[in-house]
Formats: sequence, structure tokens, C-alpha cells
Amino acid sequence: MPSLAGLFFWMNIKLENIKKLDVTKPLKLDCGKTIKDFPLAYETYGKLNDNKDNAILVFHALTGDQFVTGTNPITNKEGWWVTAVGPGRAIDTNKYFVICANVIGGCMGSLGPKDINPVTKKPYGLDFPVITIKDMVKAQESLLEHLGIKKLLCATGGSMGGFQSMQWAIQFPKKVESIIPIATSPRLTNQALAFDIVGRNAIKTDLNFKKGDYYQSNEKPEDGLAIARMLAHITYVSNDSLKRKFDNSRYDPKDISTEFENRFSVGSYLAYQGSKFVNRFDANSYLYITRAMDYFDLTKQFNGNLSKAFEKTNSKFFVISFTSDWLYPTSENRDIVIALNSISKDVGFIEITSDKGHDSFLLDVPDFLSAVKNFLETSYQKLK
Amino acid sequence: MPSLAGLFFWMNIKLENIKKLDVTKPLKLDCGKTIKDFPLAYETYGKLNDNKDNAILVFHALTGDQFVTGTNPITNKEGWWVTAVGPGRAIDTNKYFVICANVIGGCMGSLGPKDINPVTKKPYGLDFPVITIKDMVKAQESLLEHLGIKKLLCATGGSMGGFQSMQWAIQFPKKVESIIPIATSPRLTNQALAFDIVGRNAIKTDLNFKKGDYYQSNEKPEDGLAIARMLAHITYVSNDSLKRKFDNSRYDPKDISTEFENRFSVGSYLAYQGSKFVNRFDANSYLYITRAMDYFDLTKQFNGNLSKAFEKTNSKFFVISFTSDWLYPTSENRDIVIALNSISKDVGFIEITSDKGHDSFLLDVPDFLSAVKNFLETSYQKLK
Repeated sequence: MPSLAGLFFWMNIKLENIKKLDVTKPLKLDCGKTIKDFPLAYETYGKLNDNKDNAILVFHALTGDQFVTGTNPITNKEGWWVTAVGPGRAIDTNKYFVICANVIGGCMGSLGPKDINPVTKKPYGLDFPVITIKDMVKAQESLLEHLGIKKLLCATGGSMGGFQSMQWAIQFPKKVESIIPIATSPRLTNQALAFDIVGRNAIKTDLNFKKGDYYQSNEKPEDGLAIARMLAHITYVSNDSLKRKFDNSRYDPKDISTEFENRFSVGSYLAYQGSKFVNRFDANSYLYITRAMDYFDLTKQFNGNLSKAFEKTNSKFFVISFTSDWLYPTSENRDIVIALNSISKDVGFIEITSDKGHDSFLLDVPDFLSAVKNFLETSYQKLK
Repeated sequence: MPSLAGLFFWMNIKLENIKKLDVTKPLKLDCGKTIKDFPLAYETYGKLNDNKDNAILVFHALTGDQFVTGTNPITNKEGWWVTAVGPGRAIDTNKYFVICANVIGGCMGSLGPKDINPVTKKPYGLDFPVITIKDMVKAQESLLEHLGIKKLLCATGGSMGGFQSMQWAIQFPKKVESIIPIATSPRLTNQALAFDIVGRNAIKTDLNFKKGDYYQSNEKPEDGLAIARMLAHITYVSNDSLKRKFDNSRYDPKDISTEFENRFSVGSYLAYQGSKFVNRFDANSYLYITRAMDYFDLTKQFNGNLSKAFEKTNSKFFVISFTSDWLYPTSENRDIVIALNSISKDVGFIEITSDKGHDSFLLDVPDFLSAVKNFLETSYQKLK
């Protein structure tokens, strides 16, 4: 396995050079603690027009980051939403000004558990304050202020990005024309919650985890993090997509240099995914962000009434689900639509036929991409 | 966590007193190695009639054992199929003579990795030979010989038990009137395979695993085994059953004494399942048996033609699947039926409506239990 100590050093050097806002305004977190003077790493694509009305805020999912499209300067891989965002694409950077920030608690430049705790002068580790989805979007409000944007044309994202888009519409009802929550839910299903819990247990029982205090050590909880990633990866894809990908080559694993099991083609694929992931993600961030997802619960937040959650929103909602997404099934997305309809809010809904599972929103699914493109174009024209 | 060293000692004392056949006839395994003079632990229920034609061989699933019904003398818990097997139940022990053997490779008295290797005088660990489903049923043939049974009325089991039932019909076409493969498949889906692989990786990366050589140590790979179990447990139940069980008590975990995460009710439930499991199961057995399941592939075994697999069978098949079983979905069970139909074999098929997932076959699902009961009664009457 790679040496994470060396890796973090190398990553930190590179992270020095990325775009960051120093958020000076104190941010009171849901947990009661306050953070201030913290970095919020972000990236933008396209140009803000003179009216400042063409901005789209994109929220990343659990393991995503601010590098939505083009080349990620840290990993040198393609941005995570290159299928949807770029010149001429659904979220057209020739027309729109696209903004994405790394969530707080993350590890791509925004304040997170691997940063130095000013009190102890050591990395936070598990002393990092508990972060919620609400905290994440509140931190991003500062970024919009900094960029001089009063109202977004749209806020959108899939999975945890969908959580943030809804939370944004709830939190800042005057600051967004429309939102597109994709492949998401009012709260995780118990099944999705259960998978998160097993992943966290894998990290925390890794003997190298050391209660989160592993940054100074040469041995990091890489095995536990890789196990969590492999497990999560299975839930992002469908049974059908695994069948298509691996059924014919079932007994023909790729020759992967890894300590993980390398039997079966799906095994070498998982081993590759797990090993690759630990090179770019911090185990503590994984714990903090999954916990934020697990505690996100619009129904509970509004005393058992999901419609109440949306009562003060002013945005048009366009909810999108995928037929084969079993982690955030259509039924969950539909609950959002039902709650909005029951209070006569402006909401569109489409279930896209795709056999690619939850990951459909990241992939080249033409019906999905054209739905997003058309919705944005209409929204933008209406402003004119 | 409990001390597994002490536990094994205690279990071995108890295992001394259970029913075992000493299989003296050499058994050539699929891997090429031969085992002989090995214990095959088993249990029987009901009485063999004078014609010796009322015997039903039940095969257990991955973590099951020979204690099908009544009280398991080792764990003091109910037998794993108490819903289906017993006086007056679907598999009626007032009528039928029910036999179940612990599979070889297991840890409930049959030869397995925790037993002493006669060559090294130490526990086998990973020196235990590779075991296949075919090897498991071949070992059980010796038991039928010992019991003087020439032909079974039925062979049945769910999940891996379904694999064994089909393998029995293929291997010993004259030795079984009918088989009931339940919630099974011609081979695991790539998704099911992927979950097994992650579970094995969790065990093997546990620092206490020590390449399987942990029997003399006080520290056992309990965390890895518990993680594997928690993960597998999620796949045994449906999203709906988790919702029913945990949605109302979502934030009200049971107070479980465990090192695992105890947030959320589904979390405390998983922690309990994981912790309990390591008290009765050996990590090496888990590796060997899941591998046997993963390599079971009737299609490959018969050169890509599933019908060929069943060509020489003489038994009536009654295939049963469950609507909410996503680990062994109905489509997989149906493939078995299609392959049998295409060569005009005698096959019945029923898909039972149940929202309880793969575990439906272990639970009180009346339509399922009455289907089994009626099928067996008709089969038995036809003999008369």
C-alpha cells in the first residue's frame, strides 16, 4: 500500500496552490461550536455575466470535490462531473458560471479533520467538530457573498449533493431560482444507513486508526478505508451493471498490485477502487461526512412533516431519480415531490430509465443530461 | 469483545458430545487432495420408517449448522429452521426423517480449518484444502450410506443449501426423488460475489488474522469477521424489512455492549449481530465456505450450458424464490426453471410474495411453508 504520510505531504503541497476563500465570518455550527478564519476551497468554471444571474452552484457527493470538470489538479484525473458540466454540455460553461466548493469536513482544501487545530497545534482528528449538511451549505453562503452573487440561477447535485441543494433552498429561500436534487432522499433509507455504519466500523476497527490520531504515523487506516470504499462502491452500481461489466470475464481478474483478494474480475475491480481511493481521501473526513449524511433528515428536522421542510422555499424544484438506483430509490425521491405538491409548490419530477444504478447521475445517460439541459435553458430564458 | 481462545476451548468441549460420523472412506476433493478418517457432524429428527423412504436431507446455508430445529446444544438458541422443521410443520418430523450435516470446512463438528492437521499436528488454518459444493455433498453421501438410506424422499435447502440440493440431484441422480432448491441461483450474481469479496477482505486485513494462523493466539480476527457478518446481514434482508423494523426507532439504538458504532437503531442491531456471530463461527471457515459458494457455477461446470447441468437428473424439482430477495433474485431462480423446462424435466416453480428479503426462507412466511408442506405430502403419497 502507498505511504499515506508521504502522500499527505505531497497532497498538502499541491493543496497550497488551489483556490481558497478564507472565511473570516464566524460560522456557528449545528453542534454549538463556532469556526472562523477557515479555508473553503472552491473552483469556478465559465464566466459570471454582468447581471450576475447565470451562476449555478454545484454540490459534490460524499467523496467528490470542487473539481467538477476538466482535469483535477490534485489527482490529475478528470473532474467527477465531466459528463454534465463543460462547454456545450448540460450545465453549459459557455452560458453559465459554475461554482463548486469542497464541503467543510472534507480533505480537498476546505477545513477538515486533517487540518491543524489552533488550540492543540496538532491535526484535529476526532476533535474536529461534528458537521451537518446545514453547516456545509452555510459555509458556502460565504463563498457566494465573496463572489458577489445575490441569487443563484440553480443549485444542484446528486446524492449528498441533492441533500445540500434541498438544504440550500430551505436555508436561503431568496437566494436560488431553482434547484435540481438528483438521486437523493429526504433522509437515507435504513439500508443506506446500515452500509455507512459498516463502512465506519471497518475504518474505526482498523488497528492503525488509533482513534483518528494517525496523521503523524507511517501506518494509516488504509485497509479500513479501502474496505469502506469497496462496500460503498457496490451500492453505487446496479446488479445489472455489474453483470454487464463482469459476467463474461468473471474468472479473469485484472493483475492488480494489491494486498486485497484478486480472485474474480469483480474482485480485482474492487481491489483497484479501494486501493486508489486511499490515495486521495482521508479516513477521518470519510467518518465526518458520512455521519453528516446519516443525520440529515428533513422529516425529523421539521417535526415529522416533510412538507413543513419546504414551506418557506421559493425555488422551482426539479427532482430526478433513476430506475436502477437502489441506494436512493425513486420512491424516496417521489416522497420529496409528494411533500412539495401537497403544499402547491412548483415542482417537476422525472424518473430516468437507466440500469447503471446510483452512479447514473455521474455517467453518460443522455435522457438525464438533456433533461437537465432543457430545464436550465428554460429557467434561464424565463429570467430574461 | 469475548476471548475467542477461551471460546474455542469451551466450544470444543461441547462439540465432543455431538453426533459425528467418522468418514473412513477416502474422499477425493475437487482440488485434487484426498481426505479420509474425518468427522462429519450431523443431527437427525423424526424416525426413519421401515421402508426407509421418508428421509429428507436438509442442507444448511453459509453460517448454519446441523441443528435445524429444537435447541442448538452448542449455542442454546433455537435451530435455524425451526419455522419449517418440526412436529406438524412444513417438514413434519412426525412423518419424515430429517437429516442435516454440518458441511465440511465448517466449524460445528465436521472437519474444518480449526481442526488439527495430522501432518503438522497444528490446526490447519489456511493449509486446509479448498472445498467446493460438490465436495460438501460427496461427504454427505457417506452419511446416507451409514444411515442405510438408498434414496431420499427430498433434498432441500435455501441459499447455499439450494446449491447443495441441485448438486446432489446432479451428482446422485438415483438417490433423490425430489429436490426443493430455495432462494438460490445457478451461480452467485456478481453483486453477491462482490459482497462476499469485501467480507473476506475485512477478515484477511484484520491484523489479528495472521494468515489464518490465529488459533493459538488470544487475539482473533473478530473485528474483521464481525464486519463481514454485518455486511452480509444487510444483504439478507430487504430495504422494506429494515424500514419496518427501524424507521420509527431510527434514533433510539439499543444499549449494546460493543466496540462497534452504536448510533442509530440499525447500528446497534448490526453491532449485536456482528458481536454475537464471532462467538459461534470461525473466521477461516467463513473464508472457505464463502469461497465454495463463489466458485459454485453450474453453467461453467457444464461448459456454459445450464441445461446440460441437469441432463442426467431424475428428481422432480420444486424451485422457490421470494419477491424481495435481491441477493438471489427471482430472475436467477427462474434461470434454473428455464434450463430444466428446455430439456423437459419435471419442474415446479413458485415465486412467493414476501417483503422480508433473502431471509424469507428462514422466517414465518405462511405461503412458502404451505407450498413446501403440500409438495412434500404429494411427493410422499405418490410413493405409496
